Amino acid sequence: MAAEGEPTRIMVAVNESTLKGYPHASISSRGAFDWTLKKIVRSNTSGFKLLFLHVQVPDEDGFDDVDSIFASPEDFASMKHQNKIRGIHLLEYFVKHCHDIGIACEAWIKKGDPKEVICHEVNRVRPDFLVVGSRGLGPFQRVFVGTVSEFCAKHAECPVITIKRSASETPQDP
Amino acid sequence: MAAEGEPTRIMVAVNESTLKGYPHASISSRGAFDWTLKKIVRSNTSGFKLLFLHVQVPDEDGFDDVDSIFASPEDFASMKHQNKIRGIHLLEYFVKHCHDIGIACEAWIKKGDPKEVICHEVNRVRPDFLVVGSRGLGPFQRVFVGTVSEFCAKHAECPVITIKRSASETPQDP
Repeated sequence: MAAEGEPTRIMVAVNESTLKGYPHASISSRGAFDWTLKKIVRSNTSGFKLLFLHVQVPDEDGFDDVDSIFASPEDFASMKHQNKIRGIHLLEYFVKHCHDIGIACEAWIKKGDPKEVICHEVNRVRPDFLVVGSRGLGPFQRVFVGTVSEFCAKHAECPVITIKRSASETPQDP
Repeated sequence: MAAEGEPTRIMVAVNESTLKGYPHASISSRGAFDWTLKKIVRSNTSGFKLLFLHVQVPDEDGFDDVDSIFASPEDFASMKHQNKIRGIHLLEYFVKHCHDIGIACEAWIKKGDPKEVICHEVNRVRPDFLVVGSRGLGPFQRVFVGTVSEFCAKHAECPVITIKRSASETPQDP
């Protein structure tokens, strides 16, 4: 076996849950992260470095956040700040977990269309591979929605591994 | 980090070079194998087990092997035997390498359509993930040929990582 040189750099694209009022990492993001630790990193924490990328869609929160009224530039400034706080909160989950188990990591936020930005960041950062979670949409939904994971698997300039959420993890209607 | 329990089982689909008269593992198979060792297994050889699957296309050798004359059932029997020898020779390359570095492995041969058989074997063997090499066909070639890796990425019931051959490894015309 080759001597352990530079760690393997794994980029993990993470997003928020789409459940309203639940400002946490999505089930598929956490699933992809847990899978990477359990199946790839295992006990070899010094052999890997995790790179967490969270892409915020610029307009998303403006439409979702029905309690906000945007009447002045300051309102937008505070909204942007709030987004940033939420993004940092999201990344904190992953960074804290890495810190607890002693694996090196970096985390950052970008704005834009997630699939485009992820591929752009792959080109810029050059990870050894990319891990993306997937909600596991059925063929009917996929035709209309497409998925970030499918786009990245096709267009990202590095190997991509897609971790599908298992059926048992799909949230039930309340 | 969780204690090291059962090793992570990685299935690696391998095939022969398509160069005539070159009965060795394809460049893309070797690339996928080398990548897996370097980027995933690293020094943690006890944490992983590699499962090598080689799928032989039943008719392929009958058409390719222009030196053979099939005039009796015995000729076909010997051809089948010859195929088997070639498959074993191919798998020996990978098994020997694993043995040299001390990583557990299994290897076996199946007959049929590679993409269908690989997905079937994933269902049967239940690896943690599947690694497939890809020749990195351009969009024009892909429309007509399709690729085993694309089919598996879509249909295999486990995570799939496709390792594309780099441009520098593409053989030149002699």
